[in-house]
Amino acid sequence: MANPPARSAEERKRDTLKRLENDVDLWVASADEETGAPFLVPLSFAWDGTSLLFATTVTSPTGRNLAASGRTRIGLGPTRDVVMVDGSVQTHTAGELSEETHAWFAESSGWDPRRQSNADAYRWFRLTPQRVQAWRESNELAGRELMRDGKWLV
Amino acid sequence: MANPPARSAEERKRDTLKRLENDVDLWVASADEETGAPFLVPLSFAWDGTSLLFATTVTSPTGRNLAASGRTRIGLGPTRDVVMVDGSVQTHTAGELSEETHAWFAESSGWDPRRQSNADAYRWFRLTPQRVQAWRESNELAGRELMRDGKWLV
Repeated sequence: MANPPARSAEERKRDTLKRLENDVDLWVASADEETGAPFLVPLSFAWDGTSLLFATTVTSPTGRNLAASGRTRIGLGPTRDVVMVDGSVQTHTAGELSEETHAWFAESSGWDPRRQSNADAYRWFRLTPQRVQAWRESNELAGRELMRDGKWLV
Repeated sequence: MANPPARSAEERKRDTLKRLENDVDLWVASADEETGAPFLVPLSFAWDGTSLLFATTVTSPTGRNLAASGRTRIGLGPTRDVVMVDGSVQTHTAGELSEETHAWFAESSGWDPRRQSNADAYRWFRLTPQRVQAWRESNELAGRELMRDGKWLV
């Protein structure tokens, strides 16, 4: 079956922004700095136009890895229509974020970690994209890079 | 919105096997042993009832990481209906797999890496699950473990 024609960079950027604005979940890859073990989980997120915010407990492998290394690679979308985001994360406790940010995060992502029974264990991770890629099928692998060094190429 | 009731372990195993048999793509997390950088990509796969087989070039970050460390964590399904698989991978060159395996892989996954222009760069990675988890929403986090130490718990 032939793939549809590859999208232009402009179309891909438009679709990418749409996904960042409308999607509620992403895949978070991280690694244990000591053992080198890779980890992967789906989490809810919110996008403020500049950075992605998501939360998990600092006792989970993802929370521990991100708090220690600040390194992640994120995947959004189904496997045949992906947006990949690389960048480093900043780790925040609940008290380090404003009430406004908490309200916005709860509204956008659909849940409020502060209302969990183990609320104290939660950390918020802010990812400012440094590299963004988007592709659907193999004919879109060329031209998949949309942002490099934190700057949109288109 | 209330979640539907959590599935039983039997239901989750049935759904998991269905996904392994019918899905064509998965998310592969890996890590660079030297730098600790996590990586993530979607790849096509095939499932033979015991192990998952997928392929990528050994020059890509995923191929390089897996060939070096043998460590991965895999995600299947959409973010609200996931199957997570942990285990170690064995790396194979094209010549190390039988013609039968290649034909089966091409049929199941929908592509044949041996027909790519850079066929020599491809490696096949065989993952025999050691741990399998499955959950949909947060009410299914309890009881998500279906396989431990390579043995189904149900």
